[in-house]
Amino acid sequence: MESDRLARQINFLLEIDRLKQISRRSLIADGSRRENDAEHSWHIAVMAAVLAEYAPPAVDVARVTRMLLLHDLVEIDAGDTYCYDAAACGTQHERELAAAERIFALLPAEQGAAFRALWDEFEARQTPEAMFAAALDRVQPVLLNYHTQGRAWLENGVTRAQVIERNRHIEAGSPALWAYVARLIDDAVAKGYLNP
Amino acid sequence: MESDRLARQINFLLEIDRLKQISRRSLIADGSRRENDAEHSWHIAVMAAVLAEYAPPAVDVARVTRMLLLHDLVEIDAGDTYCYDAAACGTQHERELAAAERIFALLPAEQGAAFRALWDEFEARQTPEAMFAAALDRVQPVLLNYHTQGRAWLENGVTRAQVIERNRHIEAGSPALWAYVARLIDDAVAKGYLNP
Repeated sequence: MESDRLARQINFLLEIDRLKQISRRSLIADGSRRENDAEHSWHIAVMAAVLAEYAPPAVDVARVTRMLLLHDLVEIDAGDTYCYDAAACGTQHERELAAAERIFALLPAEQGAAFRALWDEFEARQTPEAMFAAALDRVQPVLLNYHTQGRAWLENGVTRAQVIERNRHIEAGSPALWAYVARLIDDAVAKGYLNP
Repeated sequence: MESDRLARQINFLLEIDRLKQISRRSLIADGSRRENDAEHSWHIAVMAAVLAEYAPPAVDVARVTRMLLLHDLVEIDAGDTYCYDAAACGTQHERELAAAERIFALLPAEQGAAFRALWDEFEARQTPEAMFAAALDRVQPVLLNYHTQGRAWLENGVTRAQVIERNRHIEAGSPALWAYVARLIDDAVAKGYLNP
């Protein structure tokens, strides 16, 4: 019905539809339900556009955006790993690597390799683009947690020290956004949204 | 707690969280529920990356992606207008214009104006970027409808002629994708997913 190349690309696009069903711990901003990974990925991609001025100098925002759109695809197989669950975190990397092998291989070879390289870059967090992308990926759940009165934090018994430890790499990607988030965390403790 | 500029940007980012609650007529690919606008926006932004080679020559894919990420924000106020509902379509543009006025004005002025200009460009569908973005915005629901055996089409009594009329502008943005979609529509009729 179509070229094999386009057929593979469409097949990939249908497969990744499953990201819409990967539920996260964070609630959406009105607190009515949990967010899913597709919604989260859209939200942080818009954040890259809105908050680009807080990125390191000369960051390629288009590449940051593409990284953010793709970064959670591995969770189609590996599931969402709650960042404050130490046992799950222990096996996370291995599970996600296997997922990356399968999912990006659905694409034509050179395109799959390019997407996979972007995902590897995001995971390694060494380039300015990856550091800024990783910062946005962490700022967003803090915003949602704060604006839902810390429900996901409180339900999971998360402490201020854990949130700081988990999120302090925001500073490497954007000192300005880390300053904002650090104040938000302190305010969350003051308001009882987060355990001291 | 922070600069007024960053506060406005964060306020915008929290406001647009509501896009996650704007339900569309299309079902997600496994047919289990309707898709929402945030998920749809993520999906077509990934499509821009995967299908960029079918865009008109020299299209700026980064600008296409940004357009796609922002194009449905007006539905936070205006709601999703079902494209085969003629009465709703009659008031759609007016409702969406009012929404654009409110929502983009939440941002710092020059940033809001830039985003608004991108939305206007998408709506006008005159530039190669806007034509390709509009094509992707239409290809995606056809894919989902086809792969859910046409349930949304059948439930809403949509005919082949309506689908052709609604989607034929895909050709202006991407002749190759239109050729693919046209075959998919014919196949949908043959399989009983779409009324002849």
